[in-house]
Order: sequence, then structure tokens, then C-alpha cells
Amino acid sequence: MAHVNENHIKLPGSYLFAEIARRVNVFKNEHPDAGIIRLGIGDVTRPLPQASIDAMHKAVDDMAHESTFKGYPEYEGYDFLIQKIIDIDYKKRGINIQKDEVFVSDGAKSDTANIQELFDLNNIIAVTDPVYPVYVDSNVMAGRSGELGKDGRWSKIVYLPCTAENKFMPELPKQKVDIIYLCFPNNPTGMTLTKAELKKWVDYARSEKAVILFDSAYEAYISAEDVPRSIFEIEGAREVAIEFRSFSKTAGFTGTRCAYTIIPREVAAYSADGQAHNLNRMWYRRQATKFNGVSYIVQRGAEAVYSGEGQKQVQALVGYYMTNAKIILEGLKAVGLQAFGGVNAPYIWVKVPGGDSWAFFDRLLNEINIVGTPGAGFGPSGEGYFRLTAFGSRENTEEAVERLKKWNIT
Amino acid sequence: MAHVNENHIKLPGSYLFAEIARRVNVFKNEHPDAGIIRLGIGDVTRPLPQASIDAMHKAVDDMAHESTFKGYPEYEGYDFLIQKIIDIDYKKRGINIQKDEVFVSDGAKSDTANIQELFDLNNIIAVTDPVYPVYVDSNVMAGRSGELGKDGRWSKIVYLPCTAENKFMPELPKQKVDIIYLCFPNNPTGMTLTKAELKKWVDYARSEKAVILFDSAYEAYISAEDVPRSIFEIEGAREVAIEFRSFSKTAGFTGTRCAYTIIPREVAAYSADGQAHNLNRMWYRRQATKFNGVSYIVQRGAEAVYSGEGQKQVQALVGYYMTNAKIILEGLKAVGLQAFGGVNAPYIWVKVPGGDSWAFFDRLLNEINIVGTPGAGFGPSGEGYFRLTAFGSRENTEEAVERLKKWNIT
Repeated sequence: MAHVNENHIKLPGSYLFAEIARRVNVFKNEHPDAGIIRLGIGDVTRPLPQASIDAMHKAVDDMAHESTFKGYPEYEGYDFLIQKIIDIDYKKRGINIQKDEVFVSDGAKSDTANIQELFDLNNIIAVTDPVYPVYVDSNVMAGRSGELGKDGRWSKIVYLPCTAENKFMPELPKQKVDIIYLCFPNNPTGMTLTKAELKKWVDYARSEKAVILFDSAYEAYISAEDVPRSIFEIEGAREVAIEFRSFSKTAGFTGTRCAYTIIPREVAAYSADGQAHNLNRMWYRRQATKFNGVSYIVQRGAEAVYSGEGQKQVQALVGYYMTNAKIILEGLKAVGLQAFGGVNAPYIWVKVPGGDSWAFFDRLLNEINIVGTPGAGFGPSGEGYFRLTAFGSRENTEEAVERLKKWNIT
Repeated sequence: MAHVNENHIKLPGSYLFAEIARRVNVFKNEHPDAGIIRLGIGDVTRPLPQASIDAMHKAVDDMAHESTFKGYPEYEGYDFLIQKIIDIDYKKRGINIQKDEVFVSDGAKSDTANIQELFDLNNIIAVTDPVYPVYVDSNVMAGRSGELGKDGRWSKIVYLPCTAENKFMPELPKQKVDIIYLCFPNNPTGMTLTKAELKKWVDYARSEKAVILFDSAYEAYISAEDVPRSIFEIEGAREVAIEFRSFSKTAGFTGTRCAYTIIPREVAAYSADGQAHNLNRMWYRRQATKFNGVSYIVQRGAEAVYSGEGQKQVQALVGYYMTNAKIILEGLKAVGLQAFGGVNAPYIWVKVPGGDSWAFFDRLLNEINIVGTPGAGFGPSGEGYFRLTAFGSRENTEEAVERLKKWNIT
């Protein structure tokens, strides 16, 4: 008899964004003519950079001729892309990354969800709260979470609250933890850490032999000088950190699918006998066994992001969305709502009148046809907040703000 | 302190095909001018069908304009592709599959490696032997394998030998098993099962409440009439089987990356309290949490495979490779080697003179510069055999046979 993974069935009914999609579909079926504006899921709306379009046309042509046809990609990504990542995303900022430390993948979601496979089930996981649900859910499925309490917390997971009270800065855990998920610029709060603040975490991980899983999918949105783009700007981070990056939000690749993960050769996890094991080689083995690389066409599209033209086009994309962020922030202020983030990040984190974030979600959808993301979906400390994204079109963003201004919020 | 997944470090040094690539690279560095012919890894060499090329150009253009731009794909795949899969791969053969039973992915390797996550660690896994290494390795990493014995067998895995002695037909296991991996047409032996033989397995799974994980990545190569293309041609299979398919070998998508998995609503696994859990919904939850769908561009390329032109082009591709298979089979016969498969499958399974398959690999590489795959890499019962693939170019395939004929084998 096939026995089910009982950890898996502990998970609440649906993934946050699947649940949002479900509610929006119900509303759409009942109100087919409503002009819904989606500022919920962090999905981009602008076309791909022209440099990527041109490169992918060329790559499609390569697949049409025997002499240029490409079969199985390298498990870890093509050299042509890895070299660009190293030179432009890292070397330019004074960080040395070796070729075998870069792993190209189909998405930072896949990588942040799968990386936990390298670790024993008895590790204590720490997450900031609110948090991107994938970090928690992937550990629940694997069996590291314990049981879900009535307070919305899993018994074995350590939550690091980030609320207005502590300026959304996680404090070092009071109990020992083994693996720490950090995402800065933060999803969902839109807040960042300074170098000094991030260094506290690196120092903690070094002293505890913990590992930091650092999601920097939104680094392109940083404009402030003292905010690190990469955790590897912090001294000693190579010993304890794995970094996740994506082309999704930088270059609009949410529907094209490309990301990468940096695992320095130094990062280790330990067996019961105290021996250190190299996570870089373990991840290579994992990817070689369970993944077959990213489409050649897509990797060529990602490579083009690093060309001179590509870099300009990406800056224009980021600028476009950050203007949206400003419009939303000012609109929220104008209607008297308190909002955070939106300066070095494409997310705006709004304090919800009344405090019930799913109720606010339903009201916003039903009354002014705007889709956001309820903070409670990101964890217990997300309750009382609501996430809006800057990834809409300018027209929709302005229209959303107009609707907010006309809305009777209370 | 971060603790390592100790199951993971039980795995032998490298994934089979990574080890082959390593040995070939060593040889190439020493003999840069050698004309190596690769008939090892099952990677295609012919260009993509023109229908897919045209469709992907159009899809790339869609990504260049706001009105046609696509963000995050549906986790389970676009309707336009799912509907074609249902109509042409299944309905045409009298099989009814519902839309929510199809899950499009980036590869059958990913899906066959990840599907084990849905099952408890105490399930007993059965694999045919020799076998595609991914089924075994993914279970080793998860912790279902027990220990590796000196005979090359993992202590908790049930091996079903397939050798010349039993005509490469696995026999029903003598002990109870919970999950059975079957791949037909078989990789690596190239052998197939008739409907009557496959029915034995479905009947076994129904009576034991076991689940069959059926890999039919090579179904396009079947020409014989009584050989089932899909396990769902067998009565009752919907209750117990999950089927994996790929565009890799059908349409040459090894470097383009698209596949799909069928999970009927009826298939279940059981919790300790005896309750049945619907694997279809669990897989949806898994994919929504740990995967973000396949590139829009790639899905459009896959859709085009089902057009009238696309179907003709795929038939031509399959025909081309099967002519290669015939050339290899006849060449092997001419030099007195015993060979199997290669009729309803793109793989030829050769009996190795002397019996040591890695030694044969090294001799073939060093003496006549042909890369194959040593049978031992597929499991203990693969020792004594060697896999050649029909996926080379015609020219290379003919040249390989010429070299074999001139070679002093013994």
C-alpha cells in the first residue's frame, strides 16, 4: 500500500497566490465586466527588454539548424551566461565568484524551495515574519515544521517578527537556529537592511555554524548607497551564505523563467560525526540528478540582459516600476493610510484599517476591484498589513490610486 | 549548527552521465584531435521541428509587446497546450484525460525525481534493474533506500532484474512493494511490454493499493501494434498509475525543456489512519509551492508539435532516428555482438564481450573514440551490457558502425 507523506497533508488548503487567484476568479465569474486591477501577485506587466527579444530570436534560429542546434544544457547553466553573471553582477561590485559557484535555474522559487533538501530534517529553521510562503511551506512538506498552532505558527519553526514596532528589522533569535531565511529587499514589507545590520546576521551564522539562505531577487530595485546588493558584500559571508537571484523582477522574466543561485565553495553543513560537507558539490549533485538545466533559448535571453543595451533597458524597466511605487505611496498617504517600503523595493506594505487583512482583501476586490495580497498570507505578523506591488502598468497604477481616493475606506 | 542531509551524502560520487562527461573530457584534453562520436547520453542531434521554430518566434514577439506579454505561467501549464495533449496524445487513442489531470513541466527528469516527495519515507520502492538512475538516486537522497551493499544494491530497494535470461521482462515482486517505477519502451534496454504484460502490473497495483510511476518518455518510438503507448490503455490504470511524458525525444526538446505528467483524479496514497489522499491535488499543491511553470515561449513551441505540420515533422524525426537504430543493430550483428532493443525504442542494449561494462566504455572511447553508456551505471543487472543510442546524426552513426567493423573487439 502506498503511504502518503503526512507532512504534506498538514499544509493548509492552498498556496497563497493560488488562493488569491481562486477568489479573483470567483469574483470575475460573478462580475464579468468589472475592470479588475491586479496589484496582488508580484507579476510584471512590461514587455521584455528588446535585447532579450533579439537574442531569443537568434537562439530559436540556432535550434533550427543542425550545426547550431543545442541538446541537453549543462546542469549548472551555460558558460556564456555564468561568465556574465560573475562579471557584471559580482565582479563590478568587488565580489569574486568562481564559475562553479553559479547555478542557473528556472526560478528562484524552485531553488529556494528545493535547497532545504540538502539539510537534515532536525535543523531548526528561522524565518522573518511576514515571509514569502515558499520558505515555510517547503519545510512543512519536508517535515521540519512540527505542528501548526492556533496562532498560525508551526511549532518547530522560529519566527522573527518584523512589524512597524521594530521598523521591520528582524532581531537575532533568542534560541539557537541552524538555517535562516533572509530576503532583502524584503518581500513582502519592501524594507531593506544596511550593511551593518546584515553583518550581524553573518556574524551570528559564523559563530553558530548556521547557514543563511539569502534571497536577493529584488536587488535591482535598490537605490540607496549603504544597502548591500549581495550578502557577499559582507565580510565572512562566503563561509555561511547561499544567495538566490532572479531575472523575473529585474528583466521581466516571470513568464520566461530564469534565475540563479550562488553557493560559495566554503559553505558547509555538518554530519553527526562533526564532519563538514561542501554544499556547493551537494547542490551540483542534486541538480544533476533532479533537474536538466534551463532552455538554451531562455539562457540566451538572460545573457542579453547584460549587454550594454540590455542594461539600459533593464534600468528603464526598474525606473518605470519605481515610479509606480512612488505613485502608490503618495496615493496611500493622500488617503491617510500608513505605508512602508516602496523606496528600495517594488513592494508597498500598507497598514490595514481594522486590522483584518483577508477582510480588507475582499473589500478592495469587491468594492473597487483592486487585487492586493493580504498580509496574513505571509505569516502571523503579516496580519494587519496588506501588500501592493508596483508591477502594474502606469495607467492601472494611476487608476488604482484614483479609485482609492474616491473610496470610502472606513 | 546546520546539519547535513546524511542520506544525500550516501550517494556515490557523481551522477552517471556527469561521470561519463568527465571521462570524455579527460580523453578530449589528452587527444584534442580525436573525432569522438557520442552515442552515450540519450541526447538528440536533429534540429527542432520547423512548426516549433515558427511558433517560438511568434511567442518571442508576443513577449515584446505589452498587449501580448505573458507573466507568470499557470503552475500546471497553459490551456492551449494541455488541450492539445488531451486531444492528440490521449483522446485519439480512446483515453479520456481531464484538464486538471495534466501537469506541464520542464522535464520528465524533474517530475520523476520529484514525485517521490508525495510519499512517506517508509514506502518500499521497486525498480526494474537496469534502470534510469534518477528513480533510485532521488529516493536515496530522500531517505528511502537504506544502505548501499557491496553488490551495488540499496538494502531497502526491491530490484526486479531484467536480463537476457528473462527476455528483459520484470517479474512481479515476491515481497510486497508500495511504489513501482516502470519505464516502457525501456531505458536502457530498449524493450517493451505488451498490453497483457502491462496489465499484470496494473492488477498487482490495484490489489496491493500500490502506485505505478510509469515513464513513457519513449512512446513515440513504438511501431508494434500490441504495445501500449500509455498505461491508461490498460483497464483500471487510472486508479493506480501516474504517467510521465516528454517532448525531449519526440520533438527534440532536450535543450528546449518541456514535458508533462498525467495524474488521474483516482490515484491515491494512504495515511496511517487508512484514509486515501488524492495525489492529483497534492501534486498541484507541490507544483504551486515549489515550481513556477514552464516558459511561455517553450509551451508555444510544444503546442506546435501537435499541428498537422508539426506531427509530420515529428514523425520524420522519429523515422530518422529509427533508421539509425537499424543501422546500429545490423552493424552489431555483423561484428558478432548480441544486441537487444532498437525496434520500438531508440536504445540498443549490447552484450559486452568480457562482461565489464566500464572497461568496455573505456576501450570504446580510447580505441575507436565512441562514447556509449556502461550498463553497470544503470544498476547491478546492467553489468555485462552497454547502451548505444540512435540519436546521433546519420553520418556519425554510419561512421561509428564502420569503426566497429574495423575494430579488433576481443
